[in-house]
Amino acid sequence: MAGSENLTASEAARKIREGSLTSEALVTDCLLRIEAREPEVLAWHYLNPEQALSEARARDKEAADGPLHGVPVGVKDIIDTADRPTGYGSGLYDEVRPAWDAACVTAVRRAGAVIMGKTVTSEFAGFHQGKTRNPRNPKHMTGFSSMGSAAAVADCHVPVAFGSQTGGSIIKPASFCGCIGYKPSYGTFSLRGVNPLAQATDTLGHFARSMEDVILFSQAVLSDSSFAEGEALRPAKVGLCRTAEWDSAADSVKAAIENAAERLGAAGLSVSEVVLPAEFAKLNETLIEILAYEAAANFAYEYEFRRDGLSDEMASLVEKGRTIPMAQYHAALDLGERCRRAMPGVMDEVDILLTPSGEGEAPLLEEPLGRTQFIRSWTLLHLPVINLAGPVGDQGLPIGLQFAGGFREDPAFLRRMQWIEGALAN
Amino acid sequence: MAGSENLTASEAARKIREGSLTSEALVTDCLLRIEAREPEVLAWHYLNPEQALSEARARDKEAADGPLHGVPVGVKDIIDTADRPTGYGSGLYDEVRPAWDAACVTAVRRAGAVIMGKTVTSEFAGFHQGKTRNPRNPKHMTGFSSMGSAAAVADCHVPVAFGSQTGGSIIKPASFCGCIGYKPSYGTFSLRGVNPLAQATDTLGHFARSMEDVILFSQAVLSDSSFAEGEALRPAKVGLCRTAEWDSAADSVKAAIENAAERLGAAGLSVSEVVLPAEFAKLNETLIEILAYEAAANFAYEYEFRRDGLSDEMASLVEKGRTIPMAQYHAALDLGERCRRAMPGVMDEVDILLTPSGEGEAPLLEEPLGRTQFIRSWTLLHLPVINLAGPVGDQGLPIGLQFAGGFREDPAFLRRMQWIEGALAN
Repeated sequence: MAGSENLTASEAARKIREGSLTSEALVTDCLLRIEAREPEVLAWHYLNPEQALSEARARDKEAADGPLHGVPVGVKDIIDTADRPTGYGSGLYDEVRPAWDAACVTAVRRAGAVIMGKTVTSEFAGFHQGKTRNPRNPKHMTGFSSMGSAAAVADCHVPVAFGSQTGGSIIKPASFCGCIGYKPSYGTFSLRGVNPLAQATDTLGHFARSMEDVILFSQAVLSDSSFAEGEALRPAKVGLCRTAEWDSAADSVKAAIENAAERLGAAGLSVSEVVLPAEFAKLNETLIEILAYEAAANFAYEYEFRRDGLSDEMASLVEKGRTIPMAQYHAALDLGERCRRAMPGVMDEVDILLTPSGEGEAPLLEEPLGRTQFIRSWTLLHLPVINLAGPVGDQGLPIGLQFAGGFREDPAFLRRMQWIEGALAN
Repeated sequence: MAGSENLTASEAARKIREGSLTSEALVTDCLLRIEAREPEVLAWHYLNPEQALSEARARDKEAADGPLHGVPVGVKDIIDTADRPTGYGSGLYDEVRPAWDAACVTAVRRAGAVIMGKTVTSEFAGFHQGKTRNPRNPKHMTGFSSMGSAAAVADCHVPVAFGSQTGGSIIKPASFCGCIGYKPSYGTFSLRGVNPLAQATDTLGHFARSMEDVILFSQAVLSDSSFAEGEALRPAKVGLCRTAEWDSAADSVKAAIENAAERLGAAGLSVSEVVLPAEFAKLNETLIEILAYEAAANFAYEYEFRRDGLSDEMASLVEKGRTIPMAQYHAALDLGERCRRAMPGVMDEVDILLTPSGEGEAPLLEEPLGRTQFIRSWTLLHLPVINLAGPVGDQGLPIGLQFAGGFREDPAFLRRMQWIEGALAN
């Protein structure tokens, strides 16, 4: 069945369950797509086609009773896999074979998934970028640490892939590539076997091409009935949240956000402006302090003993973190906690916040990386966030729409986002 | 200098700095002590004497400018070491050589420490116990996951050693062995390279034989000036906190706690009773729910794919965790957060809480493990806690005195504990 690489995970799993598609055929189509596109996109750090096919054939011999049975999944290469090398985006660890699969990899295997391979990450999910290009236009970047997973999903190499976000590393590449990115509430998925960058905000999430898939994949990872299949949920009220960074957004971004708000209003939702308390404007910078402090502790080994193999960006981050006294780090954590406690009040009258994913379209490869000023606050607030692809901008690349839900209300948030996805697609 | 194994880390580091002791001599004395005692105590999972001596000789050739220069350190074997195997207390991983040193191992190496070896841990720091016996009486247990580090420090194999606590795994073995155990405020030391049990409460800490060493070692791990040398700090007020579990303590424990309170009062401190809000009585059980839920996710790989090598205790824990719905897990986390917010009010009038470390002395090897009902609440409250050795009980084994301080006030808490250590020693 040529063309099955375009199926969503939900569609593919249904067909495999019904017997109208085999995992081998699906993986073959995905591999053909990768073969055609990878030289331009560079989304994969490690991919052994025969290994993926062999897993697919094994799935085809089993009863198709897992929610992801036979569906190939991409795995960001900071995530341990026992049967594939894990390089963490660093030349220091080219030969590492972890002793175990990360908890999340086991969870999707248990749900029947086929592991396609390891996707490109920036070095240790930090600021030294990797090679992946934007599948919509390879002269542009994907950028940010989960770049390989975002590009692989957007470009139909796999229907779903794991990513992680500490600052903006899921929402930003999803926004640049025009796929869905989901960073759950902090702490939702186990991080065992995921190399940390900064534990205060490290969050495992995933990329997909439909909200139905985001829900299916969440259910597969957590095996929790609250994510089980169900109806899209109409939100009651949406808050348009420009944030203190609004002026830094391109006119096309502002127009895309305001247009989305209007369309949701036209679809019958109540849309109101939500203004964050003044203190929230500090959260972006605060997250960077926390990240630097924790990364400095985390990467002491590489900095002290493997320095030649560490990028300048990571070395600088460690050095910056070492200048931050513990009291300042604690004050930064305290601000995050204070704002988190204020969040239920901020969202008192709305179910969902709508805000930009970034300041504009994906820059050219040779341009600066772009910033995460519209993302970091939500990460430090521990809220679940979703990027949906908005309209294309001046350069023909997608503009991201970011939505945030209530803390630990992910199942309802995802159902509401499924409704919004439908409303904006019409 | 025979006998240097009895020195504290602070004393040894001073002598090495002054030139009156070499690291090689100190490590040699410690190795002789281990040779004599290890057949009975069984504190070490991996120890290569020549490797430790070689590190010591290398330290002796360097300038002694780190705070732990030349001092040997024990490392709990759930903590990664690049140059020693790391077994995680599980037969599944006998051959594992991690790609890196854990952040904490690097930190003490940077401070000049010599890594002595890897100490025995229960399987994955969980409930399936290891082989270590109580150095005070080898017919009795050390028990709980950081057993090897507690026994090694109490028995003068090393002056300091890393442990970790998710439920009661530092305070309990310290209490059984009669050494100091320190579980810092949650999040104080980086956990990169420490295999997780349950991330909501996993906390890295250490064992020592003097409060001066606890402070020195904390400063060495964090390189933060707030832990730098200073005077012991006289607490203003101490709260005697019997907790809802008081009746489960042996009479000897109750007498030891009340006697310590009296002695602190006689030393001039104001001592008052502190009664916890009723809701706090649920925290013990709540921690177990959280631990089971998170462990079930964390150990999915071993449970699904390496089951034959997993203990019944760990398999049962995973199974228990899988029965807990996400909503119940979130409610458990919420209770912890609510009680944490109430804690500053509870400690409004006191600097330090005094409470039992356990219900009695270390049981015999063939007896049940004992419980952590006096420890788990403080762990879930994220508070810094210290075990000091109290009087010996009916069986000639030490009774533990547990002290808790304010969240993220560790530097002041440790200085106050140094004062209390002195007051109780007189």
